[in-house]
Amino acid sequence: MTRILKQIIPNTFKTISAIPVTPFRNSGEIDLDAYLGNVQRMIEGGIRAITLNGNTSEFYALSPDECRCIIEATGQGFANRAALTVGVGFDVTTATDTARFADRHGAVAVMIHQPVHPYQSADGWVAYHRAIADAVPELGVVPYVRDANVSRTMLQTLLDACPNVVAVKYAVPNPLSFAAIVQAIGTERTTWQCGLAEGWAPFFWLGGARGFTSGLVNVRADHSLKMLAALHSNDYATAMQIWAQVKPFEDLRARHGNANNVPVVKEAMAQLGLCGRAVRPPLIELDQIERAEVRALLAAWEEMQEVR
Amino acid sequence: MTRILKQIIPNTFKTISAIPVTPFRNSGEIDLDAYLGNVQRMIEGGIRAITLNGNTSEFYALSPDECRCIIEATGQGFANRAALTVGVGFDVTTATDTARFADRHGAVAVMIHQPVHPYQSADGWVAYHRAIADAVPELGVVPYVRDANVSRTMLQTLLDACPNVVAVKYAVPNPLSFAAIVQAIGTERTTWQCGLAEGWAPFFWLGGARGFTSGLVNVRADHSLKMLAALHSNDYATAMQIWAQVKPFEDLRARHGNANNVPVVKEAMAQLGLCGRAVRPPLIELDQIERAEVRALLAAWEEMQEVR
Repeated sequence: MTRILKQIIPNTFKTISAIPVTPFRNSGEIDLDAYLGNVQRMIEGGIRAITLNGNTSEFYALSPDECRCIIEATGQGFANRAALTVGVGFDVTTATDTARFADRHGAVAVMIHQPVHPYQSADGWVAYHRAIADAVPELGVVPYVRDANVSRTMLQTLLDACPNVVAVKYAVPNPLSFAAIVQAIGTERTTWQCGLAEGWAPFFWLGGARGFTSGLVNVRADHSLKMLAALHSNDYATAMQIWAQVKPFEDLRARHGNANNVPVVKEAMAQLGLCGRAVRPPLIELDQIERAEVRALLAAWEEMQEVR
Repeated sequence: MTRILKQIIPNTFKTISAIPVTPFRNSGEIDLDAYLGNVQRMIEGGIRAITLNGNTSEFYALSPDECRCIIEATGQGFANRAALTVGVGFDVTTATDTARFADRHGAVAVMIHQPVHPYQSADGWVAYHRAIADAVPELGVVPYVRDANVSRTMLQTLLDACPNVVAVKYAVPNPLSFAAIVQAIGTERTTWQCGLAEGWAPFFWLGGARGFTSGLVNVRADHSLKMLAALHSNDYATAMQIWAQVKPFEDLRARHGNANNVPVVKEAMAQLGLCGRAVRPPLIELDQIERAEVRALLAAWEEMQEVR
C-alpha cells in the first residue's frame, strides 16, 4: 500500500461543512445549473468546505447515476476552490466504488453515512467503516454518527485502526454524550464536528467540536460564518445571539420529525429565486401556511440587517 | 396502461413468506450453489412463497449487481415452483428498475423495504410507495412497515390509490396497533402479514394476520409449517406449543438489538452443513459461547423429535 493520504488542509474540518441541496426541475430531474450556481454562491460567500450527497442533498432519493453526476460536476467546478467531502453509503462495495470515484474527481475525503442495515453489531459497525476506510487510504474518512449506540469504544477502535479517519461528524442530539466521548478520546487524534448544524453547534463546541455542518448556508451563509468566527474566538455570547436569530428557522426545519429539514431550505431558496422548491418522496413540499412562515423568517432577517 | 396485475395465487400471502439467507464463501463472494440448494430444500420442505433480498438475506450488504444475480438465479430455478416476491428499496428510480427486472425474471410481487431516507413525511411516505407501485401495475406490491409512525390513514390512502398493493407486511412489534389498523381497514382489500416471524405470529394472527415471514425456515421448516397450519385452523393452543419450542431460537436472534438476527440462522445452518456462517459488515459471526447456545438449541429440537 503505497498510496498516501491526500494532503488535507489542516483546518478542513474545523469550519462549516456546507451540505448543498439538490435542486430539481419540475420534470423531476436534477437542475444541475441551479446546483452549481448554488455551490458557487456559497464559496463566494466564504464557505471553504462542501459535503456533497449528504442528507440535506436528499442523498437517499438520488440514483447512483445521479450521485456520480453530482460528484463529477462539483469536482470539475470547485475541487480547487473548496475542500470536497463526498457522502458514501449502502453496501461496502458500493461505498468503496463511490469513494474511489470521488477520489478521481477531486474529493479530499468521504463521509460515511450511518449504515442503513437494520441489524448491526458494535464490532460489525467498526468492520463496516474499516472496510471502506482501508479501501481508500489516500482519502480522509469521516464517520457520520447518528446512532446513540455508537460508543466511545467503537469510535476509539476505529480511530486506532484507520489513520485516515480524520474527523467524526457527531449527530446524536445529546451534548453530554458527545462531550464525554471527546474528553475520553481527546482532540488530537481527530477533529470533532457537530453534525446537527447551527441549532446545536454552540453546545457541541463546549464539548470539543471545532466545526459544524450546515444546510442553512444554502439560504445565506453570513449568520453561520459569524457564528463560526464567534465560536473560534470563544465568544459564546455572540454565538448565542446568532443562535437566537437562526433558531426559528432550524425549528421549522425540525418540525414533523424533521420531515421539513430539506423542504424549508428549498422553500426559502425558492422565495429568494435561487432554485425550485421541488423535493422527492418520501419528502413533500411545504403547505401554504408553512411557506408563509418561511417568508416571515426571511423578512425578519432582512429587517434585522437594516436596523444594524 | 394496459398491463394487468399478474395472476397472484389467491393464498400467496396467506402463508409463510420465507426469507432465504445469502450464503457467502470465505472469500466473501455469494455462494450461489448453497443459496439455490437452500431455496430448493425449503420448497421441497413445503414452502410456497419466497421473499428474495429481504433483511434476513442481508439486503443492505448486497451490491446492486448481487441483488440482480439473486433475482435472476431464483427466477430461473424456482419461478414455477413458488411465488417469488422481491425486496426493492432506496431511491424511486432504483426501486422501480429493480421491480421491472424482477418482473422479467418471474416475480409476482415486490416488497418495498422501509424507506431509508432520514427525513420523511406522512404524505411523502405514501408518495414514495405510490410512485413505485404505479410504475409496475402488473406486479403485486407489499409495503414492509417497520416504522410505528406509519398510520392507518397512510396505509388506507396507499391502498385506495394503488390496486396492486396486495399485502401489507407489518413489522412494528405492537400487536395492539396492528389489530387496530386491521380492524379499521378490514381484511377484504388486502392481506395482512406478520412481518416479525414466528415469535409474534400467533399474536398478530389474533389481530387479523393471515401469513407470516420467517427466517427460521432456512434452518428447518417443519415447526413453522405446523404453526401455520395450527393458526389457519384457529388452533391457538397448538400454535403456542410450537411458539414455545421456537421462542429460544428467536430470542437468541433478537439479542444485541437484533444484531444476531442473521448470524444465528447462518450459524445453525453451518452446524447442519447447509452453508457457511460468514456474514457481512455491519454484522459479525457469533462468538464461541453463542455458537454453543445454537448447538444446544438444535440438539433440543432433535431430542423433542425423538421423544415423540
